[in-house]
Amino acid sequence: MSSRSFSTQVEAARKGVITPQMLSVAQAERRSAEFICERVASGKVVIPANINHSNLVPMGIGRELKIKINSNIGTSTLASSLELELEKLEFSIRFGADTVMDLSTGENIPEIRRGIIEKSTIPVGTVPIYELVARFGADGISEENILKVIAEQAEQGVDYMTIHSGLLAKHLPLALERKLGIVSRGGSLIARYMKRTGRENPFYTCFDRILEICQKYDVTLSLGDGLRPGCLADASDRAQFAELDELGRLVERCRKANVQAMVEGPGHVPYNEIEMNMRLEQKVCGDAPFYILGPVVADCAPGYDHITAAIGAAQGAYHGAAMLCYVTPMEHLGLPEKEDVRNGVIAFKIAAHAIDVARGIPGARDIDDAISDARAQFNWQKQFDLSLDPERAAEYRKRARGGCENNPDYCTMCGPDFCSMRINAELKKHSL
Amino acid sequence: MSSRSFSTQVEAARKGVITPQMLSVAQAERRSAEFICERVASGKVVIPANINHSNLVPMGIGRELKIKINSNIGTSTLASSLELELEKLEFSIRFGADTVMDLSTGENIPEIRRGIIEKSTIPVGTVPIYELVARFGADGISEENILKVIAEQAEQGVDYMTIHSGLLAKHLPLALERKLGIVSRGGSLIARYMKRTGRENPFYTCFDRILEICQKYDVTLSLGDGLRPGCLADASDRAQFAELDELGRLVERCRKANVQAMVEGPGHVPYNEIEMNMRLEQKVCGDAPFYILGPVVADCAPGYDHITAAIGAAQGAYHGAAMLCYVTPMEHLGLPEKEDVRNGVIAFKIAAHAIDVARGIPGARDIDDAISDARAQFNWQKQFDLSLDPERAAEYRKRARGGCENNPDYCTMCGPDFCSMRINAELKKHSL
Repeated sequence: MSSRSFSTQVEAARKGVITPQMLSVAQAERRSAEFICERVASGKVVIPANINHSNLVPMGIGRELKIKINSNIGTSTLASSLELELEKLEFSIRFGADTVMDLSTGENIPEIRRGIIEKSTIPVGTVPIYELVARFGADGISEENILKVIAEQAEQGVDYMTIHSGLLAKHLPLALERKLGIVSRGGSLIARYMKRTGRENPFYTCFDRILEICQKYDVTLSLGDGLRPGCLADASDRAQFAELDELGRLVERCRKANVQAMVEGPGHVPYNEIEMNMRLEQKVCGDAPFYILGPVVADCAPGYDHITAAIGAAQGAYHGAAMLCYVTPMEHLGLPEKEDVRNGVIAFKIAAHAIDVARGIPGARDIDDAISDARAQFNWQKQFDLSLDPERAAEYRKRARGGCENNPDYCTMCGPDFCSMRINAELKKHSL
Repeated sequence: MSSRSFSTQVEAARKGVITPQMLSVAQAERRSAEFICERVASGKVVIPANINHSNLVPMGIGRELKIKINSNIGTSTLASSLELELEKLEFSIRFGADTVMDLSTGENIPEIRRGIIEKSTIPVGTVPIYELVARFGADGISEENILKVIAEQAEQGVDYMTIHSGLLAKHLPLALERKLGIVSRGGSLIARYMKRTGRENPFYTCFDRILEICQKYDVTLSLGDGLRPGCLADASDRAQFAELDELGRLVERCRKANVQAMVEGPGHVPYNEIEMNMRLEQKVCGDAPFYILGPVVADCAPGYDHITAAIGAAQGAYHGAAMLCYVTPMEHLGLPEKEDVRNGVIAFKIAAHAIDVARGIPGARDIDDAISDARAQFNWQKQFDLSLDPERAAEYRKRARGGCENNPDYCTMCGPDFCSMRINAELKKHSL
C-alpha cells in the first residue's frame, strides 16, 4: 500500500487510477470499475478503507449503489467488555451490517478498538470525541488533543470518523430554543465546551489539520450532525438546517483536500418531512453520500425503536440516503446487547433490501424470488436458508404448535384444509 | 336499535340523519358530526357496527380519519382454543387494535365467535368462507350454504365480513401464470370450486342476496382480494388489477343497496409500487376505504414480517390506505400466539401513528411531544406510561445493566459523562 502513487481513493479516481478497492466495489455492486471510479472522483461514492485496516473487504457508499447499513457497538462507562463487543461485531457481520461503528466510551478504548479492527472485515467507524473525553475529561477538549486522538485512531486503521465540525458557536441559540436541545452526545459536549470557554468549536478551527491526517491514512470523514433533532417537534428546524449548510461547506473543503466525505443526517423526523430532508442534503452537500440515523418517525415507542426507525430509514433510502445507521430496541433505554444488535441489524437490512428492490438495483430481487419458489415447493429448509435470519425462521416454525414437524406440506396457520399453497399446486396440476 | 328509521349507517347518512354512531366517531376523530355524516353518505367512511353487537364502541374507517389497524386472531384446525383467542383479543385491544378479525378455521367456530363478539368493544370481522368450509367441507360451497353462514354470522353481531366476490372464473388463467398463484385462502378455495364445477364464483352470483343480509344487520362488506399477490414477483399484475376492477363494480352495487363497503388490498408489493396501488384503488373503487394487508415489501424475512409489513403499511397509509391489517412475526411460519399478536399490533400501531402525525391529524403528535418532555425531564416513569407498550419499555430499561436503577439521571447507553440530556439541562440553566 505504501508504494501507491496516490494518498486516497478520491485522489486516485481523479487521476483516473482504478484501485483494487474500486474493482472490489465494482464487482460487489455489479457495476463497471469506470462507473465506480467516476463516482468516487466526484465524491458521490466513498470507499472507507484506511490503508492500515489490513483485513478489510472494501465496500462503497453512495445513493446509486446498494443501500448500506451500519451497526453501532461499543462499551459505555457502565457496561460491556471487549469480549462482549466482539460478540456484537460477529452478530453485526453475520446478520448483514455493511459497516460497524465502535462508540466505546468506557475503559481501555484504544485496546477495544484494536480488537474490533483486527476482527472486522467491514469498515470500522468511530466518534473520536468519545475517546477524547474519556481520556482527557470534558475539560481536555483542545485542538491538540483532538489531533492526537484522531492521529492515533487513523494510524490504528479506523476507516471513517464522525467529526462534529459543522456545529458552530452561532448555532447554539437556535439549538436551545428546542424542546430537546442537542441530543447528539458529541454535539452536546462541544456545545458545552464552547459555552464554558467562549471559543469556537475546535473541530472546526483545526479542520484543515484533521484533513491532513485523513489524507495520510485515507480516513473517510463522516460529517456529524451535532444538531440533529431528538424529537419530532424539533425536526427540520433552523438549527438543523443551519448546521447542514455548514456541512455543505465542509464537504467542499474535504473534496479540495482529496479527502472522502459523507454527511450524517437526522435523527427524529416526521414521515412527511423525510423526502424533503433527503433532497435538501443532496442539494446543499453536493450529493455527498447521506448517512442517516434512523430516522425514527415517532417518539412514543421505546422498546420498538428499531421498527420506528426502519420505517423512516426505508423512506429515507427511497429518496436518496446511501447508508442507514441502525437503531436497536434499546434506543432511548440503554446500551444494546447482542440480541438487540441482531434485531436492529435485521430491521435495517429489511429496510435497505426493500429499497434496493424498489430502486431496481440489479439482482436485488433474486433472493425474494428464490424464497418464494421455495415457499411454493413447501421446501421449508431452503426457505430458512435463504432468509435474512435462518435461525429465527426455523425456531418460529418449530414453536408453531400442532405437530407440524410431521406435516411438511402445511403450517399451523392454515392446516391441511385451508392451505392456499396446496390448493395452488392442485390447480396448477390440471389445465383449466 | 330496532325502532330506527334506517337500516344502515349509509342509509341514515343519505337521509341526513346523524346517528349515535356518527356522533361517537366524530368525537373520537375531533371532527364535526356533519363531516362524518357526509363521508358516510358518500361511502368514503364506513362505520362497521352490526345492530346486534351491543357492547361495541363505534369507530370510523376512511382515509381522512385516523389510520386504523386490524389484528387477526382465531383458531386453526391444528391449534388454539376460545381461552387463548380471548387472550389474543385482550392483547389486541390493550395494545391498540381498532378492529379484530376472527379467522377461526378449527372446531366450534360459532361458539368461539360468540365469545369474541361478547368480549369485544371493537368491531369484529370474519371471513365466512372459513366457517363454510370448516362446517360443510370444500364440496359444501354453494349459494345456499354461503347465505346460511352469512345470515347466522350477521345475526350473531359480526360487524364486517370479507367476501371474495370479485374473483371470477375469467381471472383464473391470469392467476395461474404467477409464481405463487393464489395465496388468499378464501380465494384459492373459490378458485378450486370454480375449476372443479365449471361454475362461476357463488359469492358473486348471490351477491345481491348477500347485500340483503348486510342491509338488515348493517354488516359492512370488506371486498376481499382473492387475487392479492403473494410475492414481490406477482405484485401489480394483470390478475390483481382485473379483480380490483371487479371490486370497483361491487362497491357501486353496495352503495346502491345502502350497504357500507371497504376494499381489501395487497399483499406483497415492492415499495416503489405502493403509492400507485393506493391511487389506483381510490380511482377504481370510488374512494372506498382501502384496507391493506401489510403490504410486505420483501419476501426474504420470515420471522420479521411484522417489520417488513409495517414498512409497507406506513407507505400505504401515507398514500391513502385507511386501515392496515397487521402482520405478526409468525407470518408465513405458523399461527400467531399472544406475544406475536402484541408484536404485530405495536408494529402496526407505530406505522399508523407515524402517518397520522405525517398527515397532520389533529392532536396526533401530542403524545410524542409529551414523551419528549418526559425524556428531557428524566421522568422515566412518565416516559413509560406514555409509551405504546409501557411494560416493555420498563422491562428493557431494567434489563440495561450497570446499576442504572440507582441513577435516574442517565442510562447505560451514555452513562453520566456522555449524557446529552444532562448537558442540555446544564446549557439551558445558563443563558448564552
